[in-house]
Amino acid sequence: MEIKKGMSVLELIQEMGGSGVLGAGRVYRATELLAEVIKDEDTAVFLSVAGPLVPGGLRKIIRNMIKDGEVDVLITSGANITHDLLEAFGGRHHRGIEEDDETMCEHGMGRIADLYTKSEDFEVFETEIAKILADIAAKDDHLSIREFLTLIGSSLDDDESILKTAADNNVPIYAPGFIDSMLGLQLWMFTQDTKLHIDASGDMAELSDIVYDSKKVATMILGGGLPKHYALASNLLKGGVDAAIQITMDRSETGSLGGAPLEEAKSWAKAKAGSKLVTVVGDATIIFPLILAGAKEMNQRSME
Amino acid sequence: MEIKKGMSVLELIQEMGGSGVLGAGRVYRATELLAEVIKDEDTAVFLSVAGPLVPGGLRKIIRNMIKDGEVDVLITSGANITHDLLEAFGGRHHRGIEEDDETMCEHGMGRIADLYTKSEDFEVFETEIAKILADIAAKDDHLSIREFLTLIGSSLDDDESILKTAADNNVPIYAPGFIDSMLGLQLWMFTQDTKLHIDASGDMAELSDIVYDSKKVATMILGGGLPKHYALASNLLKGGVDAAIQITMDRSETGSLGGAPLEEAKSWAKAKAGSKLVTVVGDATIIFPLILAGAKEMNQRSME
Amino acid sequence: MEIKKGMSVLELIQEMGGSGVLGAGRVYRATELLAEVIKDEDTAVFLSVAGPLVPGGLRKIIRNMIKDGEVDVLITSGANITHDLLEAFGGRHHRGIEEDDETMCEHGMGRIADLYTKSEDFEVFETEIAKILADIAAKDDHLSIREFLTLIGSSLDDDESILKTAADNNVPIYAPGFIDSMLGLQLWMFTQDTKLHIDASGDMAELSDIVYDSKKVATMILGGGLPKHYALASNLLKGGVDAAIQITMDRSETGSLGGAPLEEAKSWAKAKAGSKLVTVVGDATIIFPLILAGAKEMNQRSME
Amino acid sequence: MEIKKGMSVLELIQEMGGSGVLGAGRVYRATELLAEVIKDEDTAVFLSVAGPLVPGGLRKIIRNMIKDGEVDVLITSGANITHDLLEAFGGRHHRGIEEDDETMCEHGMGRIADLYTKSEDFEVFETEIAKILADIAAKDDHLSIREFLTLIGSSLDDDESILKTAADNNVPIYAPGFIDSMLGLQLWMFTQDTKLHIDASGDMAELSDIVYDSKKVATMILGGGLPKHYALASNLLKGGVDAAIQITMDRSETGSLGGAPLEEAKSWAKAKAGSKLVTVVGDATIIFPLILAGAKEMNQRSME
Repeated sequence: MEIKKGMSVLELIQEMGGSGVLGAGRVYRATELLAEVIKDEDTAVFLSVAGPLVPGGLRKIIRNMIKDGEVDVLITSGANITHDLLEAFGGRHHRGIEEDDETMCEHGMGRIADLYTKSEDFEVFETEIAKILADIAAKDDHLSIREFLTLIGSSLDDDESILKTAADNNVPIYAPGFIDSMLGLQLWMFTQDTKLHIDASGDMAELSDIVYDSKKVATMILGGGLPKHYALASNLLKGGVDAAIQITMDRSETGSLGGAPLEEAKSWAKAKAGSKLVTVVGDATIIFPLILAGAKEMNQRSME
Repeated sequence: MEIKKGMSVLELIQEMGGSGVLGAGRVYRATELLAEVIKDEDTAVFLSVAGPLVPGGLRKIIRNMIKDGEVDVLITSGANITHDLLEAFGGRHHRGIEEDDETMCEHGMGRIADLYTKSEDFEVFETEIAKILADIAAKDDHLSIREFLTLIGSSLDDDESILKTAADNNVPIYAPGFIDSMLGLQLWMFTQDTKLHIDASGDMAELSDIVYDSKKVATMILGGGLPKHYALASNLLKGGVDAAIQITMDRSETGSLGGAPLEEAKSWAKAKAGSKLVTVVGDATIIFPLILAGAKEMNQRSME
Repeated sequence: MEIKKGMSVLELIQEMGGSGVLGAGRVYRATELLAEVIKDEDTAVFLSVAGPLVPGGLRKIIRNMIKDGEVDVLITSGANITHDLLEAFGGRHHRGIEEDDETMCEHGMGRIADLYTKSEDFEVFETEIAKILADIAAKDDHLSIREFLTLIGSSLDDDESILKTAADNNVPIYAPGFIDSMLGLQLWMFTQDTKLHIDASGDMAELSDIVYDSKKVATMILGGGLPKHYALASNLLKGGVDAAIQITMDRSETGSLGGAPLEEAKSWAKAKAGSKLVTVVGDATIIFPLILAGAKEMNQRSME
Repeated sequence: MEIKKGMSVLELIQEMGGSGVLGAGRVYRATELLAEVIKDEDTAVFLSVAGPLVPGGLRKIIRNMIKDGEVDVLITSGANITHDLLEAFGGRHHRGIEEDDETMCEHGMGRIADLYTKSEDFEVFETEIAKILADIAAKDDHLSIREFLTLIGSSLDDDESILKTAADNNVPIYAPGFIDSMLGLQLWMFTQDTKLHIDASGDMAELSDIVYDSKKVATMILGGGLPKHYALASNLLKGGVDAAIQITMDRSETGSLGGAPLEEAKSWAKAKAGSKLVTVVGDATIIFPLILAGAKEMNQRSME
């Protein structure tokens, strides 16, 4: 590898590809595959998101991917939805933590590694989401999670919101475990008084249709958890995904899904025999912007 | 530390406590705290399970903890429920993988690191669970997840089953993300034809009551994911848990919940100020049997 | 797996063997192999030690293995030698760190994760080792590292010392990178005034002879680093080790030796084709006492 | 963060700095600090290299840093020196491993994760280095390791070699553990017949002088091991480094030096109170080219 003056992200990644081994090799192959699946009109791209990625700075990146038609389906944890809404309602994610956790609690600061949120922002969240839930319940009392998230998205003013952008661009969001989040908690509290039923299993038909109707499916997996499982499992009915890229810091030896090599999915028919699979071991807040910038540049250049 | 002839597990752990630092120190403190919370009648123990722990050999250990009254609440991933049912219906988890993933798929073998399941066992699972779902739907068409799991458990013949033992011993099982599992898939397919509504948010009231009614709550957390989040979040309404032990292989630097130090929960009022918290970094299939054996022996000795 | 009343360490490990997969399976296989290589008179056992294992509580365990004839060769980092000497001269390893690193420096406390040493103990170390170096230099001015460490060991009063026990029991200690340690620093300072040449390459002949003269060689590897490399490389000339067990927390994806699977050594003829190899991912201060206790018990029982 | 069209590496890193948290925040701060220490004429930069970084593609990057005056001192493992020489003598590092380790051994292929070397290249290495050793021994029979490496470097024809470039540019290379490497093995074999004494402790005086003569010292640490320890310890005599950046995949909980947070060095007076310290958790073959490219661009822009 060689560092050149003012090199672009793609040029750096191509240097990594020239070496082609260890982490650098994986970054190159991930970039190449991501470029390919984004570009290919026959490939539906499922973006699976777990971990503190909205707080970690990827909110705009994910939102832009949706707006630019680079993502066909978003599968996410409830936490990332909650944090997207937090920002949509005016809240922020802060850095610069000086204090210990007990003091932070007294000051209404909730810590996520080296960033924090303020409880006052969650109070605004609670007020605002209650209004939205009331509006939704007034029109429908039985919705799938995906429909529910689309309606929430449509109610928002913030164009930078992932939910709003997804709603405006007809990109479905699936969050099978969303009940376990601040949003899920607010929903539950709301439903103590008002009839509003959100059907967790109602999304499977819709997602299955998308899988069936897609010539090919590629999953871009950030982190692990329910989103990874759901993204891969939804492709069972078609013999598995055609391509997958994952960025994870989890290890494979414990057998957890998050750290499992993508090849393992082949044994479950969740990835097709011969499918293209790349895993990069690293922090998604570093590696995803890196490979996405490289992939977009790769596609731009191939169009010139 | 010193190795002595025919030493018991507790004696080994006490040697680790004598050193008191690094991983050995953590194992000692985790054992001591686990013994304390199991023994204390005023402390409700929530066991949170994520990762391939039923396939990984912990099925009987968890089942026995429930039978012996050492666990008051079980919070688990849908995968562990599925694998418990797989065994209840006569299936097994196998070792000795020789082939690559594509060949395994052809042979109906689904891989989880160095173990596998057979698709024929999943076919039995599908047949058996369909019968149980039919029985359940005939009597109730609207259940919380907890009630649903209790009814399934009551229908089983296998006394070694976690679900059956929990049902027989009135230990509630919460699985907020269960829809994302083979069981969730079977349920969804069943509900295409038959009315059976499982309410994901219905459990929050019940679990909140348990938290309120308990003088103290301790969470024993294996792995991370939804179960860890749900176990800690359910204690928000009482200012947080009084004690927590976690065994994880996840790292803290990415900010993911699984790798987050338990101290971080204090900033969210999910762990009380002054709560006793211990994290052991390691594989749960090694560390949990180790500290549980030590904890039980510690309690036996204190009763003599 | 099942937890039984007052179970011994071996009984716990046998339960892990009954499951046979993931971390528990590896612990069982490591215990079984360690028992075998310790018991087999035709197998020379090389114990390779890297990481803060003397500070971490394994001093007595390693010392006893040497005394009991369970270890034929010790290969270690200079740090572990230094910490063995620190204790031999009356120093200790302390726990209970309250302060931040800058304050600790002011108080003469050097931190290693959750333990620390006191600078006053290092001052004693410097005084004592200077006397020993003077005695050694008076008799020899040219030594191999192994001879040097044997002479230091013979000078000590502390029977619990690894160096003394090794010297008293004719177990050679190799420390190819020892110059990079407090002991190496003291040696260098001493040699500014006094002629004492320690030959780093002088040990290869001796270690090669041991490899040649051993029917079989097994390496028990704690951590990675120079000790792991040296332990494996010394067996090149005989086509590789016959067996190896490693306990490490390093990952394999970066290509570093510490995290490399033992199978990789076969490609370098550092492990024979068909050699028995087991890796346990975990903290050595937990896993090594565990498998050693199990292995010793396994051998005792087979003799009854 | 936002991905922009054809963004440069620095622009991407600045986006990461805009978020400022988790891994992305660390990459930004590491880039900023690296730019600062490279630019500051009063700061001597010690580059510490452990792990398979020459095989991993960083050979040219390190060589160019030396040539461009960005590195004042190189501290490295013997393995990286060996692999630099392998390439200098015409050998290469290959990718595309299809076979298992036993087959690779039969084919003379030595594996390092997903790359390999060919034994025929090592045979050339052995022949070539023997000639160089003979030339060196003919003129000097007593050298420090640093002098030895400088003489080897001067003998080479390959301008892309790290050793040759260092020799040509008067950049000293320290490798305290070099005896444990193929080069060390060849040296030992050579010295069975010819008098050539390489003094492991001879470098401390020289390196101490460099530390004393430098107004400030910054260490750029790739991986851990002996190089990390040596780089930090050499600064003890001046109260510690003024700045340090490390890229590692090791964890901190085991207490190993490789995974230890740089803050811990403050307690040992190996990093000054108030020193600037940044750790990025990741694969050095990805992260180092990334932050170096960003740092160089940052400095270029500040000069415009």
